[in-house]
Amino acid sequence: MADMTQITPRSALDQPASFKRRGLLFVLSSPSGAGKSTISRKLLADDPGLNMSVSATTRPPRPGEVDGKDYHFVDLERFREMTAASQFLEWAHVFDHRYGTPRAPVETMLEAGQDVLFDIDWQGAQQLYQIAGGDVVRVFILPPSMTELERRLRGRRTDSDEVIERRMTRAHGEISHWDGYDYVLVNDDADACFAKVRTILHAERLKRSRQTGLIGFIRKLERED
Amino acid sequence: MADMTQITPRSALDQPASFKRRGLLFVLSSPSGAGKSTISRKLLADDPGLNMSVSATTRPPRPGEVDGKDYHFVDLERFREMTAASQFLEWAHVFDHRYGTPRAPVETMLEAGQDVLFDIDWQGAQQLYQIAGGDVVRVFILPPSMTELERRLRGRRTDSDEVIERRMTRAHGEISHWDGYDYVLVNDDADACFAKVRTILHAERLKRSRQTGLIGFIRKLERED
Repeated sequence: MADMTQITPRSALDQPASFKRRGLLFVLSSPSGAGKSTISRKLLADDPGLNMSVSATTRPPRPGEVDGKDYHFVDLERFREMTAASQFLEWAHVFDHRYGTPRAPVETMLEAGQDVLFDIDWQGAQQLYQIAGGDVVRVFILPPSMTELERRLRGRRTDSDEVIERRMTRAHGEISHWDGYDYVLVNDDADACFAKVRTILHAERLKRSRQTGLIGFIRKLERED
Repeated sequence: MADMTQITPRSALDQPASFKRRGLLFVLSSPSGAGKSTISRKLLADDPGLNMSVSATTRPPRPGEVDGKDYHFVDLERFREMTAASQFLEWAHVFDHRYGTPRAPVETMLEAGQDVLFDIDWQGAQQLYQIAGGDVVRVFILPPSMTELERRLRGRRTDSDEVIERRMTRAHGEISHWDGYDYVLVNDDADACFAKVRTILHAERLKRSRQTGLIGFIRKLERED
């Protein structure tokens, strides 16, 4: 994860330095196995202006997962303390575990002019959208087919048949929420899908409604002559 | 201008062939001299899926302008016949001349699955937005400063001092409509500004609301096991 205390230089696609803008809340959702994590990783590596919102979860770490990077792994008691203290922007039950987005790091990143990437499900996306007054960019990644999704889940070799079956049922439910997203992409080629997500991120940064520095620039133009 | 009777292959940023979508109405506006025409030309050369809407005008051609390519040059009588027969999507008075967007070619291009680029002013953008029920992408190009705008207008060597003065007054009026656009860019570097406009075009093509073929794809996924 990129250092969030430092404001990094912007790409050629950004406005001149004088153009301040609101940080983006960029949501990536997909059924488990559709390739969202790979795309998130690529985006973060590609873009120093984007930072990950690391969710807290009560589920145990999978092999290779790093606490504080992939998730903040907490026990149920701690999770309940955090919800009681309103420390989550959104949280939800998924299977037997809880997942939540800690509020403070997101606020810190936005204040530092950074954009924030959320790897959350449709429940999280709904809550975040309501909280943020609609100023959220929501991207949904579809698998090319359910057969391919199952093939990818089995290819991970981390889940039992029972868990895979549960994930497939859940995938159908997740996909049914496609209409709550601004962009819906099919991940039939990881590089092409990543390029699309990056294009969306770059274009959304250029939206007039988020250019808080624009009014100052316009006033300067108006006063000239 | 690309051949509008032929549907050309899409770029890597487009969805799989199964994904049909509504054609885009893509509006580029700017004060005269801010570089809009250069960007339009580059976009059309870069993108076979994009076609220009050629306006009709009663103003005489400037040196180098080609009838049917830069404008359809018509006399006042013909223009009035066309407005009377509702042959324009939008039209407006600018200085002593009239400018209008012929309806039929736009409808033909959209039906052929092509996107349409409109090089029109704020009046045209307003009318088009109302007619199209809001499904228009509106991009406004600002000059880096009014001094630079005047320098560019003088550099053309096509206009008298009086005309340049009139254009500068009109530029202030045009700029005052910045808030009617979805994206506002500053053209301080022609290549960077072109890259931004292209990014916006590519991202807007991926919008869920325009993917008319998406519902069929989702139904296919839902029926799979």
